[in-house]
Amino acid sequence: MSEFGIVIHGGAGIILKEKMTPELEAGFHAGLTDSLDSGYEILKSGGSSLDAVHRAVNVMEENPLFNTGRGSVFTYDGGHAMDAAIMDGKTLKAGAVAGVQHIKFPITLARLVMEKTPHLLLAGAGAEEFAQAHGMELAPDEYFHTRRRWEQLLEAKAKAGETEFPKEPKSLGTVGAVALDKAGNLAAATSTGGMSNSRYGRIGDSPIIGAGTYANNLTCAVSTTGHGEYFMRALTAYDLSALMEYRGMSLSEAADDVIFKKLASLGGTGGLVAIDRQGNFVMPFNTPGMYRGHYLAAGKPETTIYKE
Amino acid sequence: MSEFGIVIHGGAGIILKEKMTPELEAGFHAGLTDSLDSGYEILKSGGSSLDAVHRAVNVMEENPLFNTGRGSVFTYDGGHAMDAAIMDGKTLKAGAVAGVQHIKFPITLARLVMEKTPHLLLAGAGAEEFAQAHGMELAPDEYFHTRRRWEQLLEAKAKAGETEFPKEPKSLGTVGAVALDKAGNLAAATSTGGMSNSRYGRIGDSPIIGAGTYANNLTCAVSTTGHGEYFMRALTAYDLSALMEYRGMSLSEAADDVIFKKLASLGGTGGLVAIDRQGNFVMPFNTPGMYRGHYLAAGKPETTIYKE
Repeated sequence: MSEFGIVIHGGAGIILKEKMTPELEAGFHAGLTDSLDSGYEILKSGGSSLDAVHRAVNVMEENPLFNTGRGSVFTYDGGHAMDAAIMDGKTLKAGAVAGVQHIKFPITLARLVMEKTPHLLLAGAGAEEFAQAHGMELAPDEYFHTRRRWEQLLEAKAKAGETEFPKEPKSLGTVGAVALDKAGNLAAATSTGGMSNSRYGRIGDSPIIGAGTYANNLTCAVSTTGHGEYFMRALTAYDLSALMEYRGMSLSEAADDVIFKKLASLGGTGGLVAIDRQGNFVMPFNTPGMYRGHYLAAGKPETTIYKE
Repeated sequence: MSEFGIVIHGGAGIILKEKMTPELEAGFHAGLTDSLDSGYEILKSGGSSLDAVHRAVNVMEENPLFNTGRGSVFTYDGGHAMDAAIMDGKTLKAGAVAGVQHIKFPITLARLVMEKTPHLLLAGAGAEEFAQAHGMELAPDEYFHTRRRWEQLLEAKAKAGETEFPKEPKSLGTVGAVALDKAGNLAAATSTGGMSNSRYGRIGDSPIIGAGTYANNLTCAVSTTGHGEYFMRALTAYDLSALMEYRGMSLSEAADDVIFKKLASLGGTGGLVAIDRQGNFVMPFNTPGMYRGHYLAAGKPETTIYKE
């Protein structure tokens, strides 16, 4: 229980200590802490949970370590396809973008969709056109070209060989944040660079309200990460909320149910972060690791990578 | 209660008898009946609910009266942006496409996504590339050019004037079908040409599993039609299922709750068709009309347009 706070993730997957370098590990801890600090600062000074999750995600979007914004993985065609969604638990308003390139801060564009259009989801070139029409500068391809991601694409292509679709990637990078503010409002935001070597305009769960992102002041705020197709079939984010609202489960009971029972029964892997109106939070995952952190009122920022 | 059956819709909106011609009215009844007959035939001969909803939607996709496939409305740019989704209540597998052009039968492409890829949702040019890679012929723009829809675009543009986004259209055309087969399996399918004069790659609720389309043998199969953004925020199709599963509501109680309470409280307009495992069905809507019909075992095809 806490008066306010923020909980974030930077992706779940086969993240193993023996495969990690000390530098990379330190980088992830620092990146998560930066994100937590920036969101917490807003909450502490009385700002909204919407502003806090927006800012916390922006910080990860500009950090090349995370799979979104600058550090987005490459698609099969050598381009990018970023997805993002944001939702306000007070109004149930939401905005999302899917399959966008040249956008430094996809979550900022998702928020623009929420606030400046009668729509919820804009995709592809149309979403980029909307961004420009509203004064957002497009970034050149080079901004998103990181050596680590390019090598991951080559590796994924080699592994896929002649098969049409990429193998399930080891690390399913997505970033997300959920927050409770001093006014008691909840918000959630999720942003991703998608799946390395993906093709045919594949869209995952991140920009889908109810699958990868959901917030409702009646229950909780949720952001997921993992093998998106399973979260889309299970409506994981909304299901967590529905179990609380309709079954009277606690946040922790509902989160365990959706990750360890429902997602697992479909064969899906991943995790989520969620916070409720009382400041309880959870970070369950069924993969070896999940980059994650939390910073609650009167506490300090804590970040973790592997299973405890 | 019925051993098997199919329920369909062809869109909800401000459909008023005084604005309708006898020819158009007869055309809609005939189109709905054709769709029901084709789906029923499959169910009666022991075919799957998945095949039945697929076929029933195909019949409406090739009928220029309905806003999908051949009769799709035009986007702001004078193109098309069709969305479709199909879900199998037995396996919870689903497939969807968003923002596609040149596809005569969007629901057939959605099913191809479900059956031939590890993905759930493909969008835009990538989805068309996938269609071609799997032997689906693309149709030229002329196939989708109907005079009625072109005039609707001009009318919508005149009404919108200099404003950036189109006014809420009078008729929110989408088609959908839900079915129960003799084996007790449920399936749902939804297909739409989207919103007349829409721009910036807007995607509505039809291709979003849990918003516009959902099927689960535990509960029911649902297809919605209406102002999509509200269905996306409310997760209407999955919410109906969750109310049955978690609250023990009947299909009819749950359907009334999601359309007349929840959707209405957000200010949304539209309706849905749904069928449960016992062959109970509902067709609620909060607009003046909804093109709809049902054909249950031992019954006959019945079609309706206005409020009773």
